[in-house]
Amino acid sequence: MLTVATTPEQAKQVISEWKAQGLTVGLVPTMGYLHEGHESLIKRAVAENDRVMVSVFVNPIQFAPGEDLETYPRDFEADKRLIEGAGATLVFHPEPADLYFPDACTYVNVEGITAELCGKTRPTHFRGVCTVVNKLMNISQADRAYFGQKDAQQLAVIRRMVRDLNMNVQVVGCPIVREEDGLAKSSRNTYLSAEERTAALVLSRAVAEGQRLMEAGERSAATVLGAMKQLIEAEPLARIDYVEMVSWDDIKPVETVDGPVLVAMAVYIGKTRLIDNFIFGE
Amino acid sequence: MLTVATTPEQAKQVISEWKAQGLTVGLVPTMGYLHEGHESLIKRAVAENDRVMVSVFVNPIQFAPGEDLETYPRDFEADKRLIEGAGATLVFHPEPADLYFPDACTYVNVEGITAELCGKTRPTHFRGVCTVVNKLMNISQADRAYFGQKDAQQLAVIRRMVRDLNMNVQVVGCPIVREEDGLAKSSRNTYLSAEERTAALVLSRAVAEGQRLMEAGERSAATVLGAMKQLIEAEPLARIDYVEMVSWDDIKPVETVDGPVLVAMAVYIGKTRLIDNFIFGE
Repeated sequence: MLTVATTPEQAKQVISEWKAQGLTVGLVPTMGYLHEGHESLIKRAVAENDRVMVSVFVNPIQFAPGEDLETYPRDFEADKRLIEGAGATLVFHPEPADLYFPDACTYVNVEGITAELCGKTRPTHFRGVCTVVNKLMNISQADRAYFGQKDAQQLAVIRRMVRDLNMNVQVVGCPIVREEDGLAKSSRNTYLSAEERTAALVLSRAVAEGQRLMEAGERSAATVLGAMKQLIEAEPLARIDYVEMVSWDDIKPVETVDGPVLVAMAVYIGKTRLIDNFIFGE
Repeated sequence: MLTVATTPEQAKQVISEWKAQGLTVGLVPTMGYLHEGHESLIKRAVAENDRVMVSVFVNPIQFAPGEDLETYPRDFEADKRLIEGAGATLVFHPEPADLYFPDACTYVNVEGITAELCGKTRPTHFRGVCTVVNKLMNISQADRAYFGQKDAQQLAVIRRMVRDLNMNVQVVGCPIVREEDGLAKSSRNTYLSAEERTAALVLSRAVAEGQRLMEAGERSAATVLGAMKQLIEAEPLARIDYVEMVSWDDIKPVETVDGPVLVAMAVYIGKTRLIDNFIFGE
């Protein structure tokens, strides 16, 4: 049976009963419109914890004006079926006014590590992400929280927040789940026309090309990124936001690989901004 | 028996044993050099919780360059005696390097409510306070945390942080403890020369004058504050940083009283900056 909580108080009541029984809690924060990527997170959380809370919340404070807050796809009935099928028993589905007081004025800021990649073009994005994830971790009192590696910078930023604030939760990163043809699963893939859907394959092809070069011994960021960009630029529907190589632990630009690195990209396919990445040497 | 933990891991180990037994935990965050004001917080925490953790930590990130970080008084042996005498069983006494990683980059910011009063002259102060208190709340997993009303803006800011981040801790504000002649107890009183110690009484006399006027029905902030300032300005060793009236819930300037207000001041006595306040209509 799936319990739906719409306010923090409702969710906390369920959680406090679990905690009183000494049960462990897994948290899977999502923006809904769930796909097999989310499903893999929920199943892993179910396997590793006594109880799992999935949050379904399109968080307004991580969107900037002009981004796709209003059009972000939503289908809560389908989400509930997927969540229940994956074995979670609590879904937290608040409205923005349930989660943010009108005079809310507290933000969790992770500096430095948020300056590169998505932080460059989305300067208030990670502040919104960290604030809502901090809230969800507090509401759920989670022992473990699950994040996809597709949002790799987000995963690094959340790990840093949890470490720096001495939070009592283990952050678990999970592999990217892809369509059969390679496209990374994303709720935003639904924005793509048939023609754009084909063009979007340049992202995973660039990932594969970058991986191939690095596994063959290439250690120059310029060479790896150059090959990846060339491949993407050959696609007329694609426009690069960024293709970059950074250190995986602190998200700083890398010229020559000598430790774990994140190679990440954001690419517009038509009007849709897609991201993909790989981690090398972890 | 008093246990001294110097790292978050040591403190968390003690706390997790308490939590496994279902015990409630009270937290009293301090900067040490404890006096009867702190003692009253610890005793209340002991009365209201199964176990109490007192932290003794002069938090560098809430001091700005030029403030009194280096000279802030310290006496850990005396602090331990007071803490044990008041009935707490765990003291958390880290060095800055135990609490902050060299690459720590996460801050908790409460905006708006931190703009007035002490926030005007100490613009990074509350960011440092909120960040360390958030960490201490996570380390202690406190059910209740105790703060003196002498730092009234701090109390309001911490309450707002806990509310906005859905933290699982109750913030308890406790009354100002004063010397027999009225001076609010403060670790910084030790900076005062004999002559300054006498001059410092203008703060509590101004508080008493403001309270007297408001209890007599005065509702104009300008009138109340004017009388208080006149009294302070008559003292040659005193220099006003601010004397202000703000709404108690959101720390916004008030012209005419029509709800709970905080009347707060910061006054230099020689080189020592002292604060005092009263709340009216709560």
